[in-house]
Amino acid sequence: MVAIAPSNRLRRTPFSDGVEASGVSAYTVYNRMLLPAGFAGLVQDCAHLKTQVQIWDVSCERQVSVKGPDAGRLMGLLTPRDLSKMADDQCYYVPMVDARGGMLNDPVAVKHNPDHYWISIADSDLLLWVKGVAAGMGLDVEVEEPDVSPLGIQGPKADDLLARVFGDVVRDIRFFRYKRLAFEGRDLVIARSGYSKQGGFEIYVEGGDLGMPLWNALMRAGQDLDVRAGCPNLIERIEGGLLSYGNDMTAAHTPFDCGLGKFVNSDTDYIGRAALEKARADGPAWQLCAVEISGDPVPPCDRHWPIMMDGARVGQVTSATWSPDHKTNVAIGMVRAAGFIPGAKVEIQTQEGIRSARLRDKFWT
Amino acid sequence: MVAIAPSNRLRRTPFSDGVEASGVSAYTVYNRMLLPAGFAGLVQDCAHLKTQVQIWDVSCERQVSVKGPDAGRLMGLLTPRDLSKMADDQCYYVPMVDARGGMLNDPVAVKHNPDHYWISIADSDLLLWVKGVAAGMGLDVEVEEPDVSPLGIQGPKADDLLARVFGDVVRDIRFFRYKRLAFEGRDLVIARSGYSKQGGFEIYVEGGDLGMPLWNALMRAGQDLDVRAGCPNLIERIEGGLLSYGNDMTAAHTPFDCGLGKFVNSDTDYIGRAALEKARADGPAWQLCAVEISGDPVPPCDRHWPIMMDGARVGQVTSATWSPDHKTNVAIGMVRAAGFIPGAKVEIQTQEGIRSARLRDKFWT
Repeated sequence: MVAIAPSNRLRRTPFSDGVEASGVSAYTVYNRMLLPAGFAGLVQDCAHLKTQVQIWDVSCERQVSVKGPDAGRLMGLLTPRDLSKMADDQCYYVPMVDARGGMLNDPVAVKHNPDHYWISIADSDLLLWVKGVAAGMGLDVEVEEPDVSPLGIQGPKADDLLARVFGDVVRDIRFFRYKRLAFEGRDLVIARSGYSKQGGFEIYVEGGDLGMPLWNALMRAGQDLDVRAGCPNLIERIEGGLLSYGNDMTAAHTPFDCGLGKFVNSDTDYIGRAALEKARADGPAWQLCAVEISGDPVPPCDRHWPIMMDGARVGQVTSATWSPDHKTNVAIGMVRAAGFIPGAKVEIQTQEGIRSARLRDKFWT
Repeated sequence: MVAIAPSNRLRRTPFSDGVEASGVSAYTVYNRMLLPAGFAGLVQDCAHLKTQVQIWDVSCERQVSVKGPDAGRLMGLLTPRDLSKMADDQCYYVPMVDARGGMLNDPVAVKHNPDHYWISIADSDLLLWVKGVAAGMGLDVEVEEPDVSPLGIQGPKADDLLARVFGDVVRDIRFFRYKRLAFEGRDLVIARSGYSKQGGFEIYVEGGDLGMPLWNALMRAGQDLDVRAGCPNLIERIEGGLLSYGNDMTAAHTPFDCGLGKFVNSDTDYIGRAALEKARADGPAWQLCAVEISGDPVPPCDRHWPIMMDGARVGQVTSATWSPDHKTNVAIGMVRAAGFIPGAKVEIQTQEGIRSARLRDKFWT
């Protein structure tokens, strides 16, 4: 195990004191911020997530605030997804692409009103892209990163936990909708969303000073629910086919390559439209898919693992780990669309040797 | 020590195999890529750097390639520094700012010809800013991240080592100039530059396949020079006042705040010009300075340490460590310009208690 060197540049969060008191064992870095990657261990953390409730410090999902008379116009330029029917209490998964149609990020947009959005980002400095487009076009809009740090509440007991702190009204929050609910006299956006398939919420904690009071209130309220500190879990997210920008897709891929074609439906003249219309006509170059890798638990997937079919490279595995529930190695890969055959047998070149594997048309859960 | 969790998203480099074989003990993450942060230990690594020669995997200094008929125009828009006298074999330190004059990055530009530049970046996705400006303005320019990974050769014996692999011609390379020299039949840009005060070079390794062959050739050639794997050293960089974007300055600061006012001299109508002209007229808000902190070695500076003067907060320490050579804690801080008095006694609030300290007008070396 190599240590992570501490520095200011890898930003702590409003919840870091709680994370460390809970015994974080590994960090990753996401948007230049510390993101916990393990507590009791990947397997134990996963089992707990699937049965109880966890509090996740996902502050690293930074917000890009887009505010002003041109906010709506700018949002329309930034994504191929049609935003015309987005309600003022709604969250939208909005792939964003460059002029070539390559994925720059796959954030969630949170609409406050027609002149104000947050973009809750995956791991790239989307702030700079949005600022650059706004500066280049001379738009009348303020683009900045506000002091907002999301806190995830994930797991089957998430409703029960959150109701104890914010009231039963949280049970009425619909999927990818939000309500503003008060904590210590300040309204916080609470959305039914999150990076697991176990259900739950994301609390957009506006004001870092509220971080530890909220963390502690949730921990106290959930003692008998066995609430624990947790984090996005590699096993659970691969089983469920949750993609990770930077791992499973990059700017080299269009939304079609990533299986996100249904989000390319805007009538606006958005950036990258010509490239995506051509890509749609040509058909995708890549197929993102599940890969089942046989044998003992795989080593850490810290580099692209070539996927070989009949001696030729047809793609790469980008995320992989052992699943105790499915008793196999679960993985995500990108293969050439032309060569994608569900059930096809392939070989995977890991840093510790070759494994036999099988392409799948579905994820596990 | 908390471990760093391995993932594809934290990219390995063409030199990672060599780095790991050399016993890297800590990593940081820089531009979503692994950057070694320690080998034998901070103090031993520093002593070796100051007397011998080290090979640094600084692949994380990614390049933004700007190429095409509008390349020169775009470069002129991106920086407040006058580029009109930049030669085709020259490197320029070029602060880049947003429309408000805030620092987005402090990269080094490498000019290939009037239609082609590389921007060798510090820790922010400047690629997205440059792409965004180009897309917003509809410029005729290709903006991309090429397969180029810088390798640093730093220390007093850098000339001797590099001459053994590339010939004595390397001794003629002037400061912040480069030559194209061949390795295994391919020309590489080799500049006299680097993130230490000990002298040396950066080799822009174009083509990841050349990475380990070059690493191994340098290690073999330098055996009797006691060449070792190294990395930017926290002690040495603070002693020398080398700034770190994301640690010591952010988008909240203008170049004037960072002591970089001399690089604001362009006649072009660059982005942020109005804001910087106002900032120049108003005078800087902040003064970046050296801070000497008394007492035992300080804990890791992984968060802003408030700087207090007469009970009021006047700024923050952003980088700090113990210097064995100077037998004191050396630090970098930002204080309110109005309150900056060289020699002034202040108090520093670390996570492990209050320390007395002194503001300095000069760094140590």
